[in-house]
Amino acid sequence: MKVGFIGLGLMGRPMALHLALAGHELHLWARRPASLEPFAAVNAHLHVSAAEVARQASIVFTMVADAPDVAQVTLGAGGIVEGAAAHRRPIVVDMSTIPPTAARDIGMRLAAHGIAFLDAPVSGGESGAINATLTIMVGGTAEVFEEVRPLFEKMGKKTTLVGEQGAGQVAKACNQILTGVGVAAVAEALNFASKSGVDPAKVREAMLGGSAYSSILEHHGQRMLDRNFKPGFKAWMHQKDLRIVMDEAHRLGLMLPSAAATAQLFNAMIGTGMGEEDSIAVLKLLERMSGRRRTESNP
Amino acid sequence: MKVGFIGLGLMGRPMALHLALAGHELHLWARRPASLEPFAAVNAHLHVSAAEVARQASIVFTMVADAPDVAQVTLGAGGIVEGAAAHRRPIVVDMSTIPPTAARDIGMRLAAHGIAFLDAPVSGGESGAINATLTIMVGGTAEVFEEVRPLFEKMGKKTTLVGEQGAGQVAKACNQILTGVGVAAVAEALNFASKSGVDPAKVREAMLGGSAYSSILEHHGQRMLDRNFKPGFKAWMHQKDLRIVMDEAHRLGLMLPSAAATAQLFNAMIGTGMGEEDSIAVLKLLERMSGRRRTESNP
Repeated sequence: MKVGFIGLGLMGRPMALHLALAGHELHLWARRPASLEPFAAVNAHLHVSAAEVARQASIVFTMVADAPDVAQVTLGAGGIVEGAAAHRRPIVVDMSTIPPTAARDIGMRLAAHGIAFLDAPVSGGESGAINATLTIMVGGTAEVFEEVRPLFEKMGKKTTLVGEQGAGQVAKACNQILTGVGVAAVAEALNFASKSGVDPAKVREAMLGGSAYSSILEHHGQRMLDRNFKPGFKAWMHQKDLRIVMDEAHRLGLMLPSAAATAQLFNAMIGTGMGEEDSIAVLKLLERMSGRRRTESNP
Repeated sequence: MKVGFIGLGLMGRPMALHLALAGHELHLWARRPASLEPFAAVNAHLHVSAAEVARQASIVFTMVADAPDVAQVTLGAGGIVEGAAAHRRPIVVDMSTIPPTAARDIGMRLAAHGIAFLDAPVSGGESGAINATLTIMVGGTAEVFEEVRPLFEKMGKKTTLVGEQGAGQVAKACNQILTGVGVAAVAEALNFASKSGVDPAKVREAMLGGSAYSSILEHHGQRMLDRNFKPGFKAWMHQKDLRIVMDEAHRLGLMLPSAAATAQLFNAMIGTGMGEEDSIAVLKLLERMSGRRRTESNP
């Protein structure tokens, strides 16, 4: 079928390619023409605007940086609303990570134009996008979800309809609480071990078999020990996601102590110029603040 | 062989029983005679003091509440030091959770009496003790460790020599950072979902397959959804363990933001009378503080 995809960055590019490799006819638009190069070899059509993409494809995915970008490519000038009227039943699927309130608002405004909407943010990072192993968390109606599900399954290994519009973004926010706090806690524990004069690799090994086990301890913990701070998932992106979490907490009157502490650590990472490193580089921040001198293989 | 075991509480009792069931001759002492009842059916000898236990058995395990208790039964009046001289090569293995500094200190003082010492705290709780699936984290010399290892393997499914004396307690402290912060983060995330009007069970389900996976999310998360706050691992014990962590952090000049936030939550649990509930009851604390009213199936 004809599928539109808007937002061909590190995540969007491999995700769209999986749809093309599954035999779908891609319709693309990108602000930077360079983003389109990988699509020269597949069945992909390039257009001058998001509106034109929407005119060609009844389902359009968006994968952009933040809520204003989603609003722009969907509802703005030259946006999806200007082309979607060509279809009996157009669908927009936003896979960006934006605030739940923004997703609900965009969904409502698209509905006024007769356009169905799913919020479907992902977890799993660039490698998950490349290997089509993303976790996809969806908000919207079951009917629209079932229609899009075969396409989700080309991009991810686990897709869950969490609830109504916005519920995908709520699940993503929860996911970022657990991964953010998880990274902070593993970094704190490994630094605690080092500073106590104990081999953090042995401590991690001892903990892996028990109730302290987490995917973060296994994979990110190993990368911390290897001092491999290459992203992965950049600190500024995790900071951005925790801003969404803390803004929602403020709006709802919710106390999130461990998430708040972690958000402060990520703020300090940005402030000390570590934004482009993986969020696991929070270990280096903790080391610096604990006055432990060590030779860093990856300074 | 003859094995001593001192401290027959919820954890120590099933641990000692596994040693007896493996064919060892148990030598026991307990402050409360009721603790000895389960040993009527096995090859166990009851003594009037820890000293007498140590006179009979060259290896004595201790599993008591806190550092002063360990010091008392090892070095105090009627303690292990008074009986251990009967053996060529006595060994004390403390499986309690105490500060690393206390473990190092007790090890040093026992060495002055010619007694070898391992600190070997465990993770896995009462069910781990009953099912012999504990994670055992050991500090001491490789030689003594190898001698005791066959006994550890009757009580746990994973035993790791982490480093020198005190290293077992350091690993346990790290373990309690990860499990404590993990419980807080999962409670924060599930409460965030509920308060956002989204089914927390669906959110947990969506997250389980990805990088947010943890043993805490899977098992404790499910118990939170079931509103099953029966211990398990009591809040006051987790609070005690985080006190050890935060005291060490203070001593070492270490910043532990997520652990500190979690320690405050556990303090609030004690302060609001939740000390005897499982530490996952922190969810109820967060719910109360977010003003969400709900009917609790397990009030």
